[in-house]
Amino acid sequence: RSMATLARQKLSIGLIPADGIGKEVIPAARTAIEAVGSDIPKTEFIDLEAGWETFLRVGNALPDRTVEILKNDCNCALFGSVSSPSRKVAGYSSPIVALRKVLDLYANVRPVLSVSPNPDTPPAVDLIVVRENTECLYVKQEELKITENGKEARATRLITELASRRIGKMAFDLALARPREHLTVIHKSNVLSVTDGLFRETVRSVAELDAKYKDVTIAEQLVDSAVYRLFREPQIYDVMVAPNLYGDILSDAAAALVGSLGVVPSVNAGDSFVMGEPVHGSAPDIEGKNIANPVASIRSAALMLRHMDYIKAADRIDAAVDSVVREKQYLTPDLGGSAKTSEVVDAIVKRI
Amino acid sequence: RSMATLARQKLSIGLIPADGIGKEVIPAARTAIEAVGSDIPKTEFIDLEAGWETFLRVGNALPDRTVEILKNDCNCALFGSVSSPSRKVAGYSSPIVALRKVLDLYANVRPVLSVSPNPDTPPAVDLIVVRENTECLYVKQEELKITENGKEARATRLITELASRRIGKMAFDLALARPREHLTVIHKSNVLSVTDGLFRETVRSVAELDAKYKDVTIAEQLVDSAVYRLFREPQIYDVMVAPNLYGDILSDAAAALVGSLGVVPSVNAGDSFVMGEPVHGSAPDIEGKNIANPVASIRSAALMLRHMDYIKAADRIDAAVDSVVREKQYLTPDLGGSAKTSEVVDAIVKRI
Ligand SMILES: CC(C)[C@H](C(=O)O)[C@@H](O)C(=O)O
Ligand SMILES: CC(C)[C@H](C(=O)O)[C@@H](O)C(=O)O
Repeated sequence: RSMATLARQKLSIGLIPADGIGKEVIPAARTAIEAVGSDIPKTEFIDLEAGWETFLRVGNALPDRTVEILKNDCNCALFGSVSSPSRKVAGYSSPIVALRKVLDLYANVRPVLSVSPNPDTPPAVDLIVVRENTECLYVKQEELKITENGKEARATRLITELASRRIGKMAFDLALARPREHLTVIHKSNVLSVTDGLFRETVRSVAELDAKYKDVTIAEQLVDSAVYRLFREPQIYDVMVAPNLYGDILSDAAAALVGSLGVVPSVNAGDSFVMGEPVHGSAPDIEGKNIANPVASIRSAALMLRHMDYIKAADRIDAAVDSVVREKQYLTPDLGGSAKTSEVVDAIVKRI
Repeated sequence: RSMATLARQKLSIGLIPADGIGKEVIPAARTAIEAVGSDIPKTEFIDLEAGWETFLRVGNALPDRTVEILKNDCNCALFGSVSSPSRKVAGYSSPIVALRKVLDLYANVRPVLSVSPNPDTPPAVDLIVVRENTECLYVKQEELKITENGKEARATRLITELASRRIGKMAFDLALARPREHLTVIHKSNVLSVTDGLFRETVRSVAELDAKYKDVTIAEQLVDSAVYRLFREPQIYDVMVAPNLYGDILSDAAAALVGSLGVVPSVNAGDSFVMGEPVHGSAPDIEGKNIANPVASIRSAALMLRHMDYIKAADRIDAAVDSVVREKQYLTPDLGGSAKTSEVVDAIVKRI
């Protein structure tokens, strides 16, 4: 399921580094895209602002201009990472959650893949977390009441048939494209029988919508035991599909299996727009030191291109990254190395 | 924070094996308690019913009689594990969630401890997950609407100051009793600024309620990165305190670090009642085969006794379990051994 290569004259890629190490890894991803040259159309990059630092400067974490340019002038985008205030700040809310919503990027696709020491050996971990990206507790409908017993806060968790069906389709399509054709539905319907019950039933029912899905095998797991088994026997998973919050937790958990959050890419995908985003956060503790791992962002750029059907360009970037990771000469500290961000980028670009 | 040893004439322990392997591991826990003899008062066991099989038989997963006897005649209880129907079944709802609520067992305390090869070496993993046990999404307020776009389901997530404060106190007290005196507050307030914001602020504010907490150091983690770091560097954690659902996921994740869910105990604790419960599920696939790991239930029995201040009895049980696990001669298949449940129980009882 990808946005088949249109006869695009030009690629306009919005770049939103946002906060912290986003400002180092998004330029790295840009450099990698520039290196693929003629396997993609003429490319223009548009620098855009969002994030906590933007909020501190202009009072809005997601300026209208950013949204408008993304909607009107861009085919796709790369988002870095965002810092959060340590206390609730009036008027601030996460720009990445808002962007997923305004651009209707309803799927968050997070492939987690270990690099095997030898290119001919299959990787030990090879799974995709497909995370619903627009609802669940992320609708952010919250209220606070003051009662005689103190404060009471409530949040709404929304699960719809519509959103569950489209994320289910995306997950089935991704499973179909992989050799194992296996899908695990994640839920907690032993407690949330209505909301997670709806998610589970709806995703399962996708199999009946189209005969092409008939060979996909379906399993399911409660989210708590899914995390347990992910740590104990990751090889049981191929594609996992989950409501928003479980998907958030599961993809971080899966990242722990492959050495570092610094290598795990994602795309936020809708039917007509795709935005690459490394799974890691803004890591303010290492900001500006030229030691952030650029791999997650570079792989996110490849995943974004792959989603737009620029398979060859994506393959070239991924192969270059794998070769550098496998070789172990240029690894950042999170992977046990001592290379600088810029050295890793140079090594990757040379091989693209 | 424990229910100091009252001059109890007698211990009346409710036994609720419930489903699956619960029917094997709860009798094992009973045997272990019987073995401690004079370190606890005269003990009576009361067999009680609950669970999916009970539901199938009498139409109610938690019969009134069970609740009444627990409330009126028992000092404490042991609960096994419960199976869930694979589809929503009218009238069925989880008896463990209901029991926690009706007995106001507001804290779920889950120590996760690895057994070091040598009794003098500190364990590699030694942490406690303190899970709020009465609210969050577990209030089970859900509704389903049929709209022109299909079904829409909503669940309410409730976080109150009252419940956050009492679980916070429990966590601070547990941290105080440990050498590191360190507490990590788990939340996702970058998305749930109102509900998780309230949880975070309230737990933090417990430190100001009493000067005795002044030496406890406090850290915090977003739940997604908490799971990631739990896997990568479990030694950063001492006591973790979390809202209900995050605590459910975190304690399963932590269990993966110590080899098997089959060794991780918990207690559901209120101010006047405590119920031991292994963290594992009902494992219908291995039911009746005499291969379920009894360690989690036996440790849950010890934890229950410890919580009632029968420290010597609890220490004797824990030491016997540790010695059997360390020796590796009697391990069930989940730990890589080939011992039967009954052989493990015999080996433990001999050493109590
Ligand atoms: C920054 C935060 C709002 C975000 C999320 O929870 O979605 C992040 O954890 C992620 O996974 O992209
Ligand atoms: C069986 C289920 C309702 C329960 C829970 O989610 O609390 C279980 O996973 C647990 O951790 O005790």
